[in-house]
Amino acid sequence: MDERVREHADVLVGWSARIEPGDEVVVDVAEGAHDLAVAVAERLGEVGATLTVTYGSEEVARAYLRASDDEFGTPEGELALFETADAYLRLGGGRNTAATADVGADTRQAYSHAHNEIREARMETDWVSTVHPTRSLAQAAGMAYEEYREFVYDAVLRDWGSLADEMARVKTLLDDGDTVRIVKERDDQPRTDVTMSITGRTAVNSAASVAYDSHNLPSGEVFTAPYDTEGEVFFDVPMTVNGRRVQDVRLAFEGGDVVEFEAASGEEAIGAVLDTDSGARRLGELGIGMNRSIDRFTDNILFDEKMGDTVHLALGRAYDANLPADESGNDSAVHVDLITDLSEASRIEIDGETIQRNGLFRFEEGFEG
Amino acid sequence: MDERVREHADVLVGWSARIEPGDEVVVDVAEGAHDLAVAVAERLGEVGATLTVTYGSEEVARAYLRASDDEFGTPEGELALFETADAYLRLGGGRNTAATADVGADTRQAYSHAHNEIREARMETDWVSTVHPTRSLAQAAGMAYEEYREFVYDAVLRDWGSLADEMARVKTLLDDGDTVRIVKERDDQPRTDVTMSITGRTAVNSAASVAYDSHNLPSGEVFTAPYDTEGEVFFDVPMTVNGRRVQDVRLAFEGGDVVEFEAASGEEAIGAVLDTDSGARRLGELGIGMNRSIDRFTDNILFDEKMGDTVHLALGRAYDANLPADESGNDSAVHVDLITDLSEASRIEIDGETIQRNGLFRFEEGFEG
Repeated sequence: MDERVREHADVLVGWSARIEPGDEVVVDVAEGAHDLAVAVAERLGEVGATLTVTYGSEEVARAYLRASDDEFGTPEGELALFETADAYLRLGGGRNTAATADVGADTRQAYSHAHNEIREARMETDWVSTVHPTRSLAQAAGMAYEEYREFVYDAVLRDWGSLADEMARVKTLLDDGDTVRIVKERDDQPRTDVTMSITGRTAVNSAASVAYDSHNLPSGEVFTAPYDTEGEVFFDVPMTVNGRRVQDVRLAFEGGDVVEFEAASGEEAIGAVLDTDSGARRLGELGIGMNRSIDRFTDNILFDEKMGDTVHLALGRAYDANLPADESGNDSAVHVDLITDLSEASRIEIDGETIQRNGLFRFEEGFEG
Repeated sequence: MDERVREHADVLVGWSARIEPGDEVVVDVAEGAHDLAVAVAERLGEVGATLTVTYGSEEVARAYLRASDDEFGTPEGELALFETADAYLRLGGGRNTAATADVGADTRQAYSHAHNEIREARMETDWVSTVHPTRSLAQAAGMAYEEYREFVYDAVLRDWGSLADEMARVKTLLDDGDTVRIVKERDDQPRTDVTMSITGRTAVNSAASVAYDSHNLPSGEVFTAPYDTEGEVFFDVPMTVNGRRVQDVRLAFEGGDVVEFEAASGEEAIGAVLDTDSGARRLGELGIGMNRSIDRFTDNILFDEKMGDTVHLALGRAYDANLPADESGNDSAVHVDLITDLSEASRIEIDGETIQRNGLFRFEEGFEG
C-alpha cells in the first residue's frame, strides 16, 4: 500500500475526527475507497475504537432507487446505529461520478425525506467526509491518475495546525466585522460588487477537524453565514450542480434575495435550485478558500471551495456553527456553492477596509492595500 | 449484468428470505459481491423494503484485528441495527479466501466474544447466507471462473419447492426414527460404522428458505441433532478447518464423546477443535446432503455439506431448530462439519431399516434394499 494512504488515514482518524479509545465509529466506504478503508481500520484498531463498516455504493443505491415506487420507509435500525455512533467517517471515491445520473429528482427527494432523521443523527456525530483518489475522480478533474493522486495528497497531507493558525487571523477579521464587500472588475466579464452583513455571526476556522467545527478533509476555508446581501456576483469557476454543468453564473441580490440570474450554461439548473424554496434565493454561506495546495479546479466541491484565492457563496441552508445559539439562520432544503476566483482584479473589504487583494491577505508579504 | 445474477437475487429475496414490503433489511456485501448487491438492491426496491448496506471486507477486518491489542468493545449501535432489522442477507464472495490467514486465534476469539450479542441478534432475524461466485472461490475450488459460475448457479437456481417436497420424505423418516446408523465399507479405507440417537429431535428440511428454518442459499440437506454417538467414522472428503487443510479424519465415539482421533493431514487442527470445550467432543449435527446439482467438492462448506449422496457430522454446537422448546442441545463455541461420501459401499439405516444405499433413498428408482 502507498504510504500516503496510511498518512491519509492518520490525519483522518487523529487530526480530523479525534477518535479516542472506546469510540463507536461507523466508516462508510465508497466503491473505490477500499484501500483507504483498510488503512483507516488499522488506525481504528490501534486507537481501540469499535468499527462498523457500511458500503456507500452509488450503483447499489441507484438500483434500489430506480426499482422503487418512490415510497420509502425510514430504516429505524440504521437510525439507531447513527444515534449511538460517536463518529462517522465517510470515505468517498467511486468508480463513476455519473453513477446515479438516471435517478429522477422526485425519487431522490422522497428517499432523502425518509432519511432525514438519519442524516441529522449522522450530523450529530463527529463526522468527517473525505475521498480516496480514484480513476473516476481523476477523470472528472481532467487529470491523469498519478497526477490526481499527487493533487489529493498535497491537499490532504498538510500541516493543519499551522494552516489553522493562519486561518484564525481571517476568522478574527470576520468575527469582528459587520459588512463584507467583494469586488472583482475584469474588462472581459460582468462585474462583481456585492455586500453582505455578518454582524452577530461567528466564522468557522475550517481546519479539517471536528475540534474546529470542520467536517471535510481536505478543508482549508473560513466561512460564515451572511445576510442582507446586496449587489451582483459573477461566478467564473465552472461547477456541476445536480449533475448539470454550470458556467458563468451571474446573480443579482436585493434585500438579501436573488432578484435576477443568468448563466452561460446550466441556467435551468440554477433556476431549479432557486425555485426549491424561499431560503434557496438567499445566501447561507460566505466561504474564503485558503488551502493553497489546491491549485486548480477539479469539479469536486470538496476541493474546489477550499482553493486558495477564491471565495464561494452558497444559496440555501446556513450552518448552525455560524449562528448564535438562540438564532436560526437561513433555512432551505438545498445548499449549493458557487465559486469566484479572486486571484486577480479583486478585493475583499470588511467594514470598508481591504483585507485581501488579488488573493493576498493583508497580513501576507506582498499585500498592496 | 449476467441474467443469472438477477435470478440469484430473486431466489434470495423471494424464496429464501421472504422479504415483505416495509421489512428492514441489512445486506452485507463481501469485496467481490458487488454485482449481486446491485441485483439484490433492485429486488428490495421493487418489494418496498428498506435497505442498509454493510461492507463485509475481510481485508478491512484483518487490518482492524491485527492493529488491535485484543481488547474489543461491543459496538452498541451495530447491536441496535440488528436488533431492529427484520432480515440480514450476507452476500459472501471475497477476493482471497486466505485474507485473514495471519490473524491470531486469540484475536479472533476476543473479537468474536465482544460481538456475541450482535451475532445472536443477527440470528434472530430472517437471515440468509449466500455467495456470489468470485475468481477467489473458483480458485479455492480448483475450477475455471466460468466453470465455477455454472457450478454455483446450478446449485442456487433450483426448483426449491420440488426439492423441499423430496426432502420432506427424509425429514419424516428422521422425525419418526430413534436410531441412525451409518455404514461405509471400502477395502482401501478405514471402516465407518456409527450409531446415534435422534429420539425427540426434529429434523430440519433445509430448503434454502427461512420458511423452512433454513438459512443457506444454496441449501439442500436434511439435518437433525444426534446424541449418544457410538462407533467409528472415517471422513473421506477433504476440508479446510480454521484455515488448515484436513484430510482422512477418523473419529471413534464412546457414550457420545470422541475418544480417539487421527487424520492423514491437519490432525493438529482437529485436536484444537476437540480441545475447545467439552461440547466440542460431541456431535451437534447429522446432516444428509440432498442437492444433487452440487456434484463435486469445492472446499466451501456452504456447498460441500449440501452435496447429494453425502452425510456430514458436526462437532460442537447443535441448532435450536432441532430441539424441543424446553431442551438445550449440545453446547459449544465451535461447530465444525466433517463430510463422508456415501455414493458407494455405504448405507444409512434408521431403526435397523436401510433408508439409503450408495446414495439412493428407498423412495427412489433403482434403490436396492
